[in-house]
Amino acid sequence: MPARPSERLRALGVELPAPPRPVGSYAPVAVSGSLAFVSGQIVTKEGAAVDAGLVDRDVPSSKAKELARSATLQALSALAAELGGVDRVRRVVRVGVFVASSEGFDRAHEVADGATDLLVSVFGEDGRPARAAVGVARLPKNAPVEVELLVEIG
Amino acid sequence: MPARPSERLRALGVELPAPPRPVGSYAPVAVSGSLAFVSGQIVTKEGAAVDAGLVDRDVPSSKAKELARSATLQALSALAAELGGVDRVRRVVRVGVFVASSEGFDRAHEVADGATDLLVSVFGEDGRPARAAVGVARLPKNAPVEVELLVEIG
Amino acid sequence: MPARPSERLRALGVELPAPPRPVGSYAPVAVSGSLAFVSGQIVTKEGAAVDAGLVDRDVPSSKAKELARSATLQALSALAAELGGVDRVRRVVRVGVFVASSEGFDRAHEVADGATDLLVSVFGEDGRPARAAVGVARLPKNAPVEVELLVEIG
Repeated sequence: MPARPSERLRALGVELPAPPRPVGSYAPVAVSGSLAFVSGQIVTKEGAAVDAGLVDRDVPSSKAKELARSATLQALSALAAELGGVDRVRRVVRVGVFVASSEGFDRAHEVADGATDLLVSVFGEDGRPARAAVGVARLPKNAPVEVELLVEIG
Repeated sequence: MPARPSERLRALGVELPAPPRPVGSYAPVAVSGSLAFVSGQIVTKEGAAVDAGLVDRDVPSSKAKELARSATLQALSALAAELGGVDRVRRVVRVGVFVASSEGFDRAHEVADGATDLLVSVFGEDGRPARAAVGVARLPKNAPVEVELLVEIG
Repeated sequence: MPARPSERLRALGVELPAPPRPVGSYAPVAVSGSLAFVSGQIVTKEGAAVDAGLVDRDVPSSKAKELARSATLQALSALAAELGGVDRVRRVVRVGVFVASSEGFDRAHEVADGATDLLVSVFGEDGRPARAAVGVARLPKNAPVEVELLVEIG
């Protein structure tokens, strides 16, 4: 496996999306010491959520898992823009995954794997974070998934 | 703009409320190194939530945004009590905003601006944090909004 | 009161459960500097949630409070496995408690006391953390409670 995260991304055939623009009075990334906090990411296109709705009732779980992966790529793009590249990430420390869940949907952890599978494939074992996955009532812009990242930088 | 956060608060005509009292076995603020974590704040009066209910169905979004601002002032009051003043805050690192959302309400991010607009007006760009805003099923005491802060102190 | 957390656990007659196994691509604990982040814990038996359901409608609040305590013991077990013992915990910094709440249940803070009461009894005032308690729509495996920990280690 290539040593550097930027090379691994290329080896995976993945291109980072454009850095996300905040939809309010917050920053995409806030750095404190060696920790970089990335704001919660939802996947939008022209200002509207992609595949809007509640998971299970409106959006299949498998699609939500893909969106969790896409939201994570956005988070990496935000980090790259802030830090000058993803290679400054030393360790993915924590990932929070919020899944907008319809009545009875209890597999937020499977959706969350869309985020953390990608991180492990890009950063190896340093990309395996602590994680909290929960099913919430509703997300901004009716997005099905929101992903929040905390990383250690060097 | 005045240089110090305490002066900016005064210039804004804002007085901090009394420091919040925990409603359980937790601390208003926990400090670790240069990070200070503030517990989730809801706005109460005589032990009951102000404007209780779900946002949109029971409480207008605009009112919830005001409550997010008030909850953030409580968080600053908790920090001031713990640290001896808000001027020890160097950077607002992360804000979590939980919005008790009625069916279909998908504008938690607008409510969350009530918290982060205030922080930017008090701390300038150092007050622009990473943020996660989500719509949840129900909050303690049926409060419409809960705001959690993480700051870097000096 | 005995000085060391491991002794206090014994004095309380509490034995830590087996360390939790992740149900996805994440780590039980991720360490960055002096901070150790523990993944969200739900209580399971043979792969299924214990007392599955929504709090109030399916699971009494008092039972959910016990589960919050059990989930916290799992978190301590994960920390002990990662760090070589609970005595390396210097301070419990933050606890997040997610309560799967049925319509109208607004006492997530009482459920959360099940987590933080235990931490205070084990670590004394160093175990009194900042806390966020919220009521969510649904948790992984239909668990009623999920508990997330952040501790400072020495």
